[in-house]
Amino acid sequence: MARPGALLARSTDAETRASARDHDALRLWLRLLATTKVIEGGVRALLQREFATTLPRFDLMAQLERAPEGLKMGELSRRMMVTGGNVTGITDLLEQEGLVARLGDRDDRRALRVRLTPAGRKAFRAMAEAHERWIIRAFAALAPAEMRALGDSLARLKQHVRTGEELKS
Amino acid sequence: MARPGALLARSTDAETRASARDHDALRLWLRLLATTKVIEGGVRALLQREFATTLPRFDLMAQLERAPEGLKMGELSRRMMVTGGNVTGITDLLEQEGLVARLGDRDDRRALRVRLTPAGRKAFRAMAEAHERWIIRAFAALAPAEMRALGDSLARLKQHVRTGEELKS
Repeated sequence: MARPGALLARSTDAETRASARDHDALRLWLRLLATTKVIEGGVRALLQREFATTLPRFDLMAQLERAPEGLKMGELSRRMMVTGGNVTGITDLLEQEGLVARLGDRDDRRALRVRLTPAGRKAFRAMAEAHERWIIRAFAALAPAEMRALGDSLARLKQHVRTGEELKS
Repeated sequence: MARPGALLARSTDAETRASARDHDALRLWLRLLATTKVIEGGVRALLQREFATTLPRFDLMAQLERAPEGLKMGELSRRMMVTGGNVTGITDLLEQEGLVARLGDRDDRRALRVRLTPAGRKAFRAMAEAHERWIIRAFAALAPAEMRALGDSLARLKQHVRTGEELKS
């Protein structure tokens, strides 16, 4: 699925005048993107194989599990970790299956809150446990110290991109 | 945009019986996902701000730049690094703008190859250079040794997830 080489094609193009250190940054970003996509692909395959469900459905239920009082649709959309899902469409299907319920004023759809039903909570827990077991096996590739270092580097990188003024222009 | 805590909500649930080491894996995966999304968001904002274009358009042109002989639509779809784009729709628009051309047998659309026009190549290079400059500034958060360690960890993780038989079941 990933072709990290594509953006490096112009590494032989003198116009870019990029130093080896500079290309390292681009190469590292493409590797980060590719690694995330490979793991996400594994999670999608797991959810399909074991629960005949999709990552956007799982993600939506995960957000609701954190909010026992329910979430308005707009807030639910903002909290989704993965994209590509139609939040309203997914919610409609989960409601038909009895896994989520809409609560509140039916005359004002924007005021409706969505939350997991007890059946939805139970279904989500089974998925979440299988998901976590799979992630543990995936990250078993790394020693504990390497995991800590990776976590530290990602935290620093994320913080820098979120707050760095020089990245806004 | 990211709520890495959502999947950790059940950390207080005795049923999961997860050790601290185990939750570390889940937490690290959520951090990896969130970091990728934050950087991807920065790239999207850059492309919009400076080129009034989108990440799927940039990604599509990047794949074509690597293939001077052009690509069939199916192959182009497979090579895309980001999702969420309608490859046929994007290609149609880029063709209208003169940035890509379809070549080959018009009677057999599947046999058509898409490639960048000279104008498309020029437009892509300007975007790719701005993209790389932004990525270099983003990864300036990390020292060179830290970048190397991050790259090594990601390579090991990706390889393990791609080939690990224990992850297939």
